[in-house]
Amino acid sequence: MRKIGISEIEDIAMGAALLGAGGGGDPYVGKLVAIGAVKECGPVTLLDPDEIPDDVLIMPIAMMGAPTVLAEKGIGGKEYETLYKMVSRFFGREIYALMPIEAGGVNSMLPIAAAARLGLPLVDCDGMGRAFPELQMVTFTIGGLKATPMALTDEKGNSVIFDTITNKWTEELARAVTMSCGGSVSVSLYVMTGGQMKQYGVKNIVTRSQKLGEAIRTVKNSAPLTPEEHFLQFAEGFKLFKGKIADVLRETRGAFNYGKVVLEGIGEYKDRQAFVQFQNENLLASVDGEILATTPDLICLVDTETFSPVTTDALKYGKRVMVVGLKCFEMWRTPAGIELVGPRYFGCDTDYIPLEKRCEGGTANV
Amino acid sequence: MRKIGISEIEDIAMGAALLGAGGGGDPYVGKLVAIGAVKECGPVTLLDPDEIPDDVLIMPIAMMGAPTVLAEKGIGGKEYETLYKMVSRFFGREIYALMPIEAGGVNSMLPIAAAARLGLPLVDCDGMGRAFPELQMVTFTIGGLKATPMALTDEKGNSVIFDTITNKWTEELARAVTMSCGGSVSVSLYVMTGGQMKQYGVKNIVTRSQKLGEAIRTVKNSAPLTPEEHFLQFAEGFKLFKGKIADVLRETRGAFNYGKVVLEGIGEYKDRQAFVQFQNENLLASVDGEILATTPDLICLVDTETFSPVTTDALKYGKRVMVVGLKCFEMWRTPAGIELVGPRYFGCDTDYIPLEKRCEGGTANV
Repeated sequence: MRKIGISEIEDIAMGAALLGAGGGGDPYVGKLVAIGAVKECGPVTLLDPDEIPDDVLIMPIAMMGAPTVLAEKGIGGKEYETLYKMVSRFFGREIYALMPIEAGGVNSMLPIAAAARLGLPLVDCDGMGRAFPELQMVTFTIGGLKATPMALTDEKGNSVIFDTITNKWTEELARAVTMSCGGSVSVSLYVMTGGQMKQYGVKNIVTRSQKLGEAIRTVKNSAPLTPEEHFLQFAEGFKLFKGKIADVLRETRGAFNYGKVVLEGIGEYKDRQAFVQFQNENLLASVDGEILATTPDLICLVDTETFSPVTTDALKYGKRVMVVGLKCFEMWRTPAGIELVGPRYFGCDTDYIPLEKRCEGGTANV
Repeated sequence: MRKIGISEIEDIAMGAALLGAGGGGDPYVGKLVAIGAVKECGPVTLLDPDEIPDDVLIMPIAMMGAPTVLAEKGIGGKEYETLYKMVSRFFGREIYALMPIEAGGVNSMLPIAAAARLGLPLVDCDGMGRAFPELQMVTFTIGGLKATPMALTDEKGNSVIFDTITNKWTEELARAVTMSCGGSVSVSLYVMTGGQMKQYGVKNIVTRSQKLGEAIRTVKNSAPLTPEEHFLQFAEGFKLFKGKIADVLRETRGAFNYGKVVLEGIGEYKDRQAFVQFQNENLLASVDGEILATTPDLICLVDTETFSPVTTDALKYGKRVMVVGLKCFEMWRTPAGIELVGPRYFGCDTDYIPLEKRCEGGTANV
C-alpha cells in the first residue's frame, strides 16, 4: 500500500502512454483529469494485488471510444459516481476498490481520478499490460470472465447497463451507444472478485508505468550509456527503426482511429523506409518490407530526443521518432491470446511471431 | 376485472391493428404469440385502470424496431422474464401489473403474452391510443414522465438498461442498440405508478380494441345499414378515399419502415388519386392534392370487403382499400401533443388541423 500524488501521476501518465503502444489517449489530457481530482480530493491509495481479499468486488474504470474525440469532448466529474451507483445497485453490494483495465495515457489516469473522487483505493493491476482497441481484448476474456454487467455513462448524464451473452456482443452494443453519445464515454466493465483479479490480471502495472515514466524523465543523466541505450535497456525495448514521419494516413470510423504512418530513415537507418499500421494502437511495424513486430507485442513510437511516447493521434509530418518493440504480457502469447488480439484478428496477413524471434539476427538492435 | 382468452385475443388483435394506423405490426404475428402463451399458461386477467392502487408499479411491455423485421425474426418466450427481472431489480420492488404502451397488431399482443407467462394481470390502458414510431411519442412524455429506466432484451439473451436525461435520448440510444441486435427487440419502458398511469394513460384501450375487432368480425350482418356504413359508424370513422393500390414506395432505414402508397380511385372516387405517406404508421393522407388528414389523427387503410386493417408492411399492388380517418386521443391535440407527434415533427410541411375540420364540407363522408 502506498499513496499516489501529483508527482507519481506525472510519471505514471508518461510510462502508461508508452505502454499504450500508440493508443490509450494523450497522457497530457489524462493527467490533467487525474491531477484535478487529486488536488480536489487528496491523494489515492494504491493497493498491491496481494493485499486484496478474494471475495470483494473490484470495479475497473475506463473511457471507451476514439481518443481523438475524447480530447475535444472532455470528461466531467460526475461520471464515476454514476458508474459506482449503477454497478453497486446491480450487484446489491459495495465496491471494495477500483482498477484500470488498460495502460495508456488516458485509461491509466481515469481510474486514479475516480478513486480520488469516490474515496476508494486503486489496485495495482490491469487487464492488458498495454492498450487494445476493443473491449473483449483483456486477459479476463481468456480467463472466461464476462465483461458485463457493463456500466456506461456520458458527460451529459445518460447511462446504460449492458448484460450480454458474449464479450463480443458487449463490444458491439456498447460501441453503438458510444457512437450515439458522440464517440467517447466513461465505462465500468469486467467487475470481478479479488480472487479473479489476482488470477488473470496483469499485476503491478501502475508501478511499472511509474518506473518507465521516471526513466523517461531522468534519461538524460545516464552516463556511461548514451541516453538512447539507457532508455532501451530500462524499457527492455527492441530498437526497430529511427526515422522522420513522411506521411500519415488517418481515418476516424466506428469510434476508432485507423491509419498508417510512413517513416523515412535517419542516422544509421538513412535511405531505408518503414511503416507502422494502427487501429487506435500500433498493430504492425515493417522495415523495407520486412515485418519486425506485430500485435500483441507492443510497438511504440517515441521522440528521438526526449523518448516521450508519441500516440497515434499525435503523429505529425516531419517529427523524428524511434520505433521500439516491447514484449507483451505472456498470457497474450498463448493460442487463446493470439486468437483474441493476434495480427489476423486485425486483418494483418501474417502469423504471430514473437518480437524477439523476428528481430533475431535481423536489423533490430536490442 | 375480466378474463382474456383466445376469442378475446382474436378481436383485440384485429381492433388494435386498426388503431395501429398502419403500424404496430401484423396482427396475425401478434396474435400467434399471445394465443401461444395463453394456451400454455392460461387466460390473462384484465384490470380496469380504476382498480389499480396509486402507489404500485406498472410495467409496460412492447417490441421496438421495424415490424417488417419482427415478422422474420420472431419473438421467444424468455424475454418477458428477463425484462421483469431487470426492472424489479432496478427498483428493488415487485411489479403489480403489466400494460401495453401502444395499440397495433403486435404491441397490443405482446403484453398479453407477457402477462400470461409471468402470471401477472394486465391493465386496460396504454400510452398512445394508437401506434407511433418513436418511443418518446407517448402521453406520458406530455405528463413529464421518464421513459427510463428502460429495459431491452433480444431473442439471443443480450439485455440492456437505459437511464437517460430525456426521452429523446432514450430513443436515440435504444434505437442504436435495436439496430445492432438485428432490428427488433423486446422492451419495457415508462415504468410508472398506478397513480401516474391513471392520470396520463389512454384508458380502456384494450376494451375499445376488442369492440372494434368484434365489429369488424360481425360487420356483414348489419342491415339496414350497408356493411361500410355500419363499420364507419361503429369506428366513428371519416371516409377519406377508396381506391386500388397503384404503387408502393418502401424503404427500411434506421429500424423504421418509410414509404408512400399511391391509390387510384374506385367507385365514387373513380378518376381521382390519393397518396398516403408513412413512417411505420400512416402520417398524411392527401386526395387530388388536398390534405384530408395528418398525424396525430389516425389514418387507417382497410380492406374494402372485410374492413380488416391493412398495415403499411402489407401494402401490395392491386389491393383495394378504403382510407379512413379516426380522431386521435384528445391529449395529442394540445400544443405539447402536436409538438411531439404533429406533422412537422415528421417533416410534413403542414400545420395540424383536426381531421373533422379538414373534412368539413370537403370530399370526406362521415
